[in-house]
Amino acid sequence: DNDGCLWAEQPVYFQLLFAADEVRRLAPQHPEWQQTEPFRSLLAGDMKAVASQGEKAAAQLVAASHANMTTDEFDRRVRAWLESARHPTTGRPYTQMIYQPMRELLDYLRAHGYRTFIVSGGGVDFMRVFAAEAYGIPTDQVVGSSGKVSFEMRDGVPTLVKLPEINFIDDKEGKPVGIHQYIGRRPVMAFGNSDGDLQMLQYTTAGTGPRFGMIVHHTDARREWAYDRDSHVGRLDKALDEAARRGWTVVNMSRDWERVFP
Amino acid sequence: DNDGCLWAEQPVYFQLLFAADEVRRLAPQHPEWQQTEPFRSLLAGDMKAVASQGEKAAAQLVAASHANMTTDEFDRRVRAWLESARHPTTGRPYTQMIYQPMRELLDYLRAHGYRTFIVSGGGVDFMRVFAAEAYGIPTDQVVGSSGKVSFEMRDGVPTLVKLPEINFIDDKEGKPVGIHQYIGRRPVMAFGNSDGDLQMLQYTTAGTGPRFGMIVHHTDARREWAYDRDSHVGRLDKALDEAARRGWTVVNMSRDWERVFP
Repeated sequence: DNDGCLWAEQPVYFQLLFAADEVRRLAPQHPEWQQTEPFRSLLAGDMKAVASQGEKAAAQLVAASHANMTTDEFDRRVRAWLESARHPTTGRPYTQMIYQPMRELLDYLRAHGYRTFIVSGGGVDFMRVFAAEAYGIPTDQVVGSSGKVSFEMRDGVPTLVKLPEINFIDDKEGKPVGIHQYIGRRPVMAFGNSDGDLQMLQYTTAGTGPRFGMIVHHTDARREWAYDRDSHVGRLDKALDEAARRGWTVVNMSRDWERVFP
Repeated sequence: DNDGCLWAEQPVYFQLLFAADEVRRLAPQHPEWQQTEPFRSLLAGDMKAVASQGEKAAAQLVAASHANMTTDEFDRRVRAWLESARHPTTGRPYTQMIYQPMRELLDYLRAHGYRTFIVSGGGVDFMRVFAAEAYGIPTDQVVGSSGKVSFEMRDGVPTLVKLPEINFIDDKEGKPVGIHQYIGRRPVMAFGNSDGDLQMLQYTTAGTGPRFGMIVHHTDARREWAYDRDSHVGRLDKALDEAARRGWTVVNMSRDWERVFP
């Protein structure tokens, strides 16, 4: 049995864009949103006002676009969005806005008999559609945050319904817990890019035998973004300190990556 | 991507024997158990009295033997038990007390490009060790019931601790929910043997395209057991009725299986 290997890039940002587009699409059926934040600002096109409302606003947009529908319906919506939506600056589909070196790494590991998993802070039902299309990773090898789901018979049809209740948050301490609950064994390698990956890296590299921990440091303002200790989104601070102490490899994107996107 | 295929035999009974053996092993450290049911009856060898206390007693034995330890420690205990414990009537290891025809079915499906999963009402941390040894199924393809787990630093060592709180019950309505949350797509085939598998069979066979549902009917008192509608353990009643209505295949163990155990 080959040990699992993790890859933790988080297209959480894409999921928020999906949520925003869904709220715009569904707005005609929700006149009350014109009076309620963060929907009002979003529908008025004031993304700065949405962003200023922080994580609570993000959670509200996700709840409004990710719950109270069947799992099949949600799956269809994500697929439709991934097909039609385009990245605002590059004009390319989001499934192509992934890191070329990480895709090569996944291919390389699989060619050497490793099983590869995604362990994301993003919603697992979104990530599974994305990961299958972008990375060729099957649904059961994607671990993520999730809402509760209920089983119902609707007119004799067995139906799974997404509920507006949190089931599991796959971030920070949640990542090693998610690895245990969903994968069931400790990986031999882990790759992260933020403090949300710290505990996963600690847990992975503390196992017996050879272990490998790696952090992608976003240092490339020209081709991508440059941020670390002071960023509100994807902060990389504690994990960067710990990388030095524990001997994890830190990839300097601007220096080490010949190509960023495919 | 090959669709998953499920197999739902439940060695839950083996897990209870493990729990009972663990309580006996741990009894010297728990003098209070001599005064408390169901421990007192168990330690006195009165299994009839334990059984008469029903599911609550089973849950207490499981809690006493499955929580308040690290996941690594639990894993070691299950391995040690599977190595040393022997089935009371056959004298064979429990990992050999599995159904030969179902093992052949798993091999057959894998040889034809299916991925095979176990979806069990039993505890997933127990089932994963068992399924790897008995069926060659990797840990991440086992879905089961689970307790909550916490991540802690213990003297600088990243540690996962099993808590005495229920996280998920993978039975009845829980089975299709577990399939969605842990596997992330609807299987094309499902195999069950009790009413606990009914909703999984309904969900699986309601998908589009060719689907297959199968129920193993325990009819063989000579080589195994004979039970169905009136049994307290592993009752098969509603699912048997629904099999006729929905065209699921019912395997009559005494008539259809040339061999039961390997």
